[in-house]
Amino acid sequence: MGKVVFDISMSLDGFIAGLHDGPDNPMGDNGVEALHKWIWGDRTDGVPGDGATGANREVLAELKNTTGAIVVGRRTYDIVNGWGGTHPFGAIPAFVVSKDAPEHVPQGGTKFTFVPDGIESAVKRAQTAAGNKNVYVVGGANIAQQCIKAGLLDEMRIHIAPLLLGEGIRLFDHLGAESIELERTRVVDSPDVTHLIFRFVK
Amino acid sequence: MGKVVFDISMSLDGFIAGLHDGPDNPMGDNGVEALHKWIWGDRTDGVPGDGATGANREVLAELKNTTGAIVVGRRTYDIVNGWGGTHPFGAIPAFVVSKDAPEHVPQGGTKFTFVPDGIESAVKRAQTAAGNKNVYVVGGANIAQQCIKAGLLDEMRIHIAPLLLGEGIRLFDHLGAESIELERTRVVDSPDVTHLIFRFVK
Repeated sequence: MGKVVFDISMSLDGFIAGLHDGPDNPMGDNGVEALHKWIWGDRTDGVPGDGATGANREVLAELKNTTGAIVVGRRTYDIVNGWGGTHPFGAIPAFVVSKDAPEHVPQGGTKFTFVPDGIESAVKRAQTAAGNKNVYVVGGANIAQQCIKAGLLDEMRIHIAPLLLGEGIRLFDHLGAESIELERTRVVDSPDVTHLIFRFVK
Repeated sequence: MGKVVFDISMSLDGFIAGLHDGPDNPMGDNGVEALHKWIWGDRTDGVPGDGATGANREVLAELKNTTGAIVVGRRTYDIVNGWGGTHPFGAIPAFVVSKDAPEHVPQGGTKFTFVPDGIESAVKRAQTAAGNKNVYVVGGANIAQQCIKAGLLDEMRIHIAPLLLGEGIRLFDHLGAESIELERTRVVDSPDVTHLIFRFVK
């Protein structure tokens, strides 16, 4: 069975999106460009990652090539409108943690399954779908926190963007007073971002 | 004139100390060992840094060798009790941001000056004392936030410890909605910690 991997870009001060994020403002105020410059490079259209170069391109390709299924929260799904029907990684099964299924699901290459009975169930179903490949937990912050607290993650890939966003949606919040040990297994350095890969010590 | 440098160890989730920090519990609950393992190594006595090895030892030595004066908040000063009179860097002038001077100041190698008129004044006085060397802003979080908001820092050295502390004193908090651009100038990798050096883009 593959690993369960959470992967996200974060400002040095711990935010993964600016304030007021929503369908018309997917990454919130002030957040999107600087946080994801490493993914988009000089491009603003096309598929995310097309504009990535050097080590950043390799880091993205590795995630794509090792992913067999994704898990995403309903709020993030709504904000990105189901990636218009096709996740940037293409025809890969996506499990959306959601009490109910939306009336309209955009049709495209990605098969969406709406999982009503919580994060553990969503991850388990995604693992079955992924086979020997990994489950990529996309987010958002609330889903990530649920995964961390339930001990569901094997690996966490945090791409630290060199800025202080000041306000927004904090990734690491509401985790409680129990400290969690990690092992930093890899660092990939590039001018726009520092990729830090951690293993959960279990 | 030298640079103004803020240097601190932080958990991946953004805490520089656990809850309930105070003179009897300097780093708070649950925090001290894991956050500062890279400084102490296997030792728990003696001068901080004596037990550091390899790249960690070099990172510490560089800070020590380039520092001409330090700035510290009164709360941190009280918590460490003025390092018993001598800062681990030795006979280096220390400027404590403090409305009043304490009745008793421990006597040792470090000359403490209590600066009543705020952080900018303390940094300016430290710069004069440091000459061509750097001013090292020790903390705590509140002092760091004041320095960041006032644009006083040239460089920030964040040592990211591989753990999620869950709760405690957040370094990057109360910074307001204005985002601040950084340039990541260096990454130093070691098993216990990832040293990230940033320049403030002004």
